[in-house]
Amino acid sequence: MMEIAIDPWEITEIKNYDALLKRFGIESFKDILRYVPKPMLYMKRGIVYGHKDFSRIITAIKKKEKFAMLTGLMPSGKFHFGHKIIADQMIYYQQLKADCYIVSADIEAYLTRNIPIEEGRKTAIEEYLINYIALGLKPKNVKFYFQSEGSKDYMNFSKFITKKITFNEIKAIYGGDITPAKMISVLTQIADILYPQLKENDGPKPVVVPVGFDQLPHINFTRDIAARLKGYKFVLPSATFNKFMPGLQGGKMSSSNPMSYIALTDEPETVRKKIMKYAFSGGQATIEEHRRKGGNPDVDISYQWLTFIEESDKKLKKIYDNYKSGKLLTGELKEILIGKLTRFLKQHQNKRKGAEKLINKFLK
Amino acid sequence: MMEIAIDPWEITEIKNYDALLKRFGIESFKDILRYVPKPMLYMKRGIVYGHKDFSRIITAIKKKEKFAMLTGLMPSGKFHFGHKIIADQMIYYQQLKADCYIVSADIEAYLTRNIPIEEGRKTAIEEYLINYIALGLKPKNVKFYFQSEGSKDYMNFSKFITKKITFNEIKAIYGGDITPAKMISVLTQIADILYPQLKENDGPKPVVVPVGFDQLPHINFTRDIAARLKGYKFVLPSATFNKFMPGLQGGKMSSSNPMSYIALTDEPETVRKKIMKYAFSGGQATIEEHRRKGGNPDVDISYQWLTFIEESDKKLKKIYDNYKSGKLLTGELKEILIGKLTRFLKQHQNKRKGAEKLINKFLK
Repeated sequence: MMEIAIDPWEITEIKNYDALLKRFGIESFKDILRYVPKPMLYMKRGIVYGHKDFSRIITAIKKKEKFAMLTGLMPSGKFHFGHKIIADQMIYYQQLKADCYIVSADIEAYLTRNIPIEEGRKTAIEEYLINYIALGLKPKNVKFYFQSEGSKDYMNFSKFITKKITFNEIKAIYGGDITPAKMISVLTQIADILYPQLKENDGPKPVVVPVGFDQLPHINFTRDIAARLKGYKFVLPSATFNKFMPGLQGGKMSSSNPMSYIALTDEPETVRKKIMKYAFSGGQATIEEHRRKGGNPDVDISYQWLTFIEESDKKLKKIYDNYKSGKLLTGELKEILIGKLTRFLKQHQNKRKGAEKLINKFLK
Repeated sequence: MMEIAIDPWEITEIKNYDALLKRFGIESFKDILRYVPKPMLYMKRGIVYGHKDFSRIITAIKKKEKFAMLTGLMPSGKFHFGHKIIADQMIYYQQLKADCYIVSADIEAYLTRNIPIEEGRKTAIEEYLINYIALGLKPKNVKFYFQSEGSKDYMNFSKFITKKITFNEIKAIYGGDITPAKMISVLTQIADILYPQLKENDGPKPVVVPVGFDQLPHINFTRDIAARLKGYKFVLPSATFNKFMPGLQGGKMSSSNPMSYIALTDEPETVRKKIMKYAFSGGQATIEEHRRKGGNPDVDISYQWLTFIEESDKKLKKIYDNYKSGKLLTGELKEILIGKLTRFLKQHQNKRKGAEKLINKFLK
């Protein structure tokens, strides 16, 4: 059992992912990587670092059995590169023939962040859905829904769950600060994770939920509850855990702090300005000193971001080595990132225009 | 503030209604009786003994303004004479032009009594709805619904309520034994009480909820929450409190104990047998002693039942006096009740046949 309650409403910076795995009973993704048929970049690069029961998903992919991917979005603020990490995985699973369930957590947004349902709807569509489509999500086999507009069985299921839980358990998992509103958010989210397995969705089936570490309590709690709800014959949901992209200034990337992220709708000048001005550097105080001592890519945010964005391992290694040796200056490293981002964003923002026309295919 | 938490899941026998009024801040119905335009029998006879904000309802009736009546049914067991007390009030308000909201608490039945939703549906229709119709409920301006099949706004509203409440408050009101399942039942019931005032039902309006004392915590909590949800501009719901019909053997009448009640579908032989065998008597041990000392109508269940059933005050008084003086024997008193019940049930059971045809008018 875990000793420390993780508060999923307070995402904290994580320094040591290996320690995390051991402490919280997450399996190392590295150990199963060789069994994954077509691993994506984030898997190969250790950005997806942990999992629970992912072998079920590997089996489903290999045997071409039905499986699903579920992810939730918080309809608040701008869609930024941190969100892209989940979106890329979503699209990866769709290409592997997963049914995709994407839920806009508008009930949670209203209950815990006071975001009106209508505003949440607008953000989910204009910020998230359009970007998903531009990134490559296809309408086929996607169920995109809002917590506030789910089916009756889904709505009722979020209530039925309470038959199998106690307040003590909720407090042990979520800590003493839990409120009725947070509890309802939790119940709704548990219903979301099990929704692909309800009768109306032709359940039960393996489901993978790609998440950050902050969602572990929900994943564990959902798996516990799924096991208790014997009548439903749920397959325990699988999860993968990916690293968080750090905020530009270090610390966490947050929708509520525009200086911490680059949005997928940011203009080239904004990208340049933000990176030049805010991106925390691992370089030395002077060029001379940098040439002599070298930089520290492990704390340099521009380099960290490139580990998420630069597809070529070879290029990435070269950047790492050159920065460490002092051959590459901080300004030059930032230019590499700016170039990479602006080229991507130019293409992406073009695709967004076509994406708008497809929105209605997702909002059936 | 109340000192003792009332547990609405454990109905207790109530000995002294006057003390109750004072202690729990319920107004005496007697004091407003003279302002009620067409008071019904239960009101005149003190069976409806208390209220909260009933003056709003009196005003609406007098000014012919729109108002609503809401009641919930627990879809479990047989429909018996205890349930008829609420049904009669429901029909009374309908005759006074109230819109009637009748909710089958199937979510609560499932969460707190483990009654499957489908079974609850059957019971609500075959036991409750048919009897309501046979007792005189008309389809016009009635919304008969199931908690599990409410509108999306209703379902979401039951979640939104949590923004305005704390766990400490819930514990203070419902006691420490509250569970997540009971909390969801409470939230759902609060949504029910405020449902007639949601936008889809044409907004704020006076609503009366006729209940027994066991429902007081829900009424108080709902009124508190309604006041906090300022954006909705709710009218604080009104309530009336009626006495419970005692169980045949004394103590409480309970659906789970057939020896405690007479169902509206019971055969004449069953009625006779139950009353002769089980009805607790206020008579003396021998006829001789009874003639000499007289009986005690205040503890005699047959007499108590007649206070709910015998329409004529004059007849009722005569029975009281004759039993008290010893002129009327226990066997004779029981025969009066049996005659009264079987005549009513013969007519009622005939009406049930016609009622079946009207069911679909309520299940739109």
